[in-house]
Amino acid sequence: MKMAKSTENQTILPEPTIRRLPWYLSYVRMLDNLHVEYVSSTQISKELNVQSSQIAKDLSFLSVRGKTRIGYEVKSLMAELEDFLGFNRKHDAVVIGTGSLGTALMQDRGLENYGLNIVAGFDVRSEVIGTSLGGLPVYDIKDLAEWHRSHNEVSIAILTVPVESAQETADMVIASGMTALWNFTPYRIKAPEDVVIANTSIYAHLAIIYNRMHNTNNG
Amino acid sequence: MKMAKSTENQTILPEPTIRRLPWYLSYVRMLDNLHVEYVSSTQISKELNVQSSQIAKDLSFLSVRGKTRIGYEVKSLMAELEDFLGFNRKHDAVVIGTGSLGTALMQDRGLENYGLNIVAGFDVRSEVIGTSLGGLPVYDIKDLAEWHRSHNEVSIAILTVPVESAQETADMVIASGMTALWNFTPYRIKAPEDVVIANTSIYAHLAIIYNRMHNTNNG
Repeated sequence: MKMAKSTENQTILPEPTIRRLPWYLSYVRMLDNLHVEYVSSTQISKELNVQSSQIAKDLSFLSVRGKTRIGYEVKSLMAELEDFLGFNRKHDAVVIGTGSLGTALMQDRGLENYGLNIVAGFDVRSEVIGTSLGGLPVYDIKDLAEWHRSHNEVSIAILTVPVESAQETADMVIASGMTALWNFTPYRIKAPEDVVIANTSIYAHLAIIYNRMHNTNNG
Repeated sequence: MKMAKSTENQTILPEPTIRRLPWYLSYVRMLDNLHVEYVSSTQISKELNVQSSQIAKDLSFLSVRGKTRIGYEVKSLMAELEDFLGFNRKHDAVVIGTGSLGTALMQDRGLENYGLNIVAGFDVRSEVIGTSLGGLPVYDIKDLAEWHRSHNEVSIAILTVPVESAQETADMVIASGMTALWNFTPYRIKAPEDVVIANTSIYAHLAIIYNRMHNTNNG
């Protein structure tokens, strides 16, 4: 597991830790809604089914410290997690491919609670170019590079194109100067090392469900 | 890594393998579209950036065998992968929570290519109960258990409810007799061991993007 400190004191976290931190956050957000003031790692452990030693280890990456017998202060833990995960900062993004998933993401204001600010969509289909979805404009993908020149604060492209166009579209996105790709296609995108890629392969999750179901039922 | 053979000769695959198999599938589907007849693991390796020894290992779970110097027959490999992943069998499912993501999934006919057949949606909001989305009916979540009694071929529930209702709703789904939960909420669902749960935590992926971006840019 590689870890490194950058000049800004940002830590490259192990992926399993990053996957668990949002669970803790959603739990403490719920506690905060219920006006609960303190939470122990034992309590989080019971609720989320994660070993409390693992929780303590994960939370040690944050600067919040628990108090003996009382545990973590809910409000501080929530703020620390949001800050650490980047959910309280605005990250501008565009949706590439405004099919049903792309449209849903553009219309989903819930993502703003996680720091994602979608500002536009891009597509190849003349019937959607020039329209708006969820109040956001849809542009011609051909104009992406030019658009990005005047919107270079946007670094995240959400890739929701058909699988056949995945690599070709990713190449255009990278050429335009964007540095992060959230890939929803089942295609394994190739990109230079300095481009950040996160794969959300919902089809792989389906395969996992099918595989486990057949074995649970018959095995 | 646990593995077991069931009575039906189905193998519980390691998760990393299951995650890679859909990449191979999407690649060979593309080759088949282009009327390519054979593909070697070296070729797959170059295209997908996975070591060819790993590919050979992953594909050894299937009954397809490559030929020396020629490689795998594209059509057989495609059929074997689809069969093995369960994408060529129909799996009935319901969407629980018809917000923007739930609605998108109900409208996305593309999931059918991966064996997922959504038959209905369920919600708590009176304004959507009784309507239809993507041609599918939306029912009251209160009626889920009763509905499932006459639709017990449906075993998959797709959970797209707000995070605060995640556990409570999952409990209802499990009580109704469904055996698989595809959890899109950031909440870590607790369930009996014989219930299959797949977590698609899109927020965790966002956190990974943010974390890697800050480190790539500054580190």
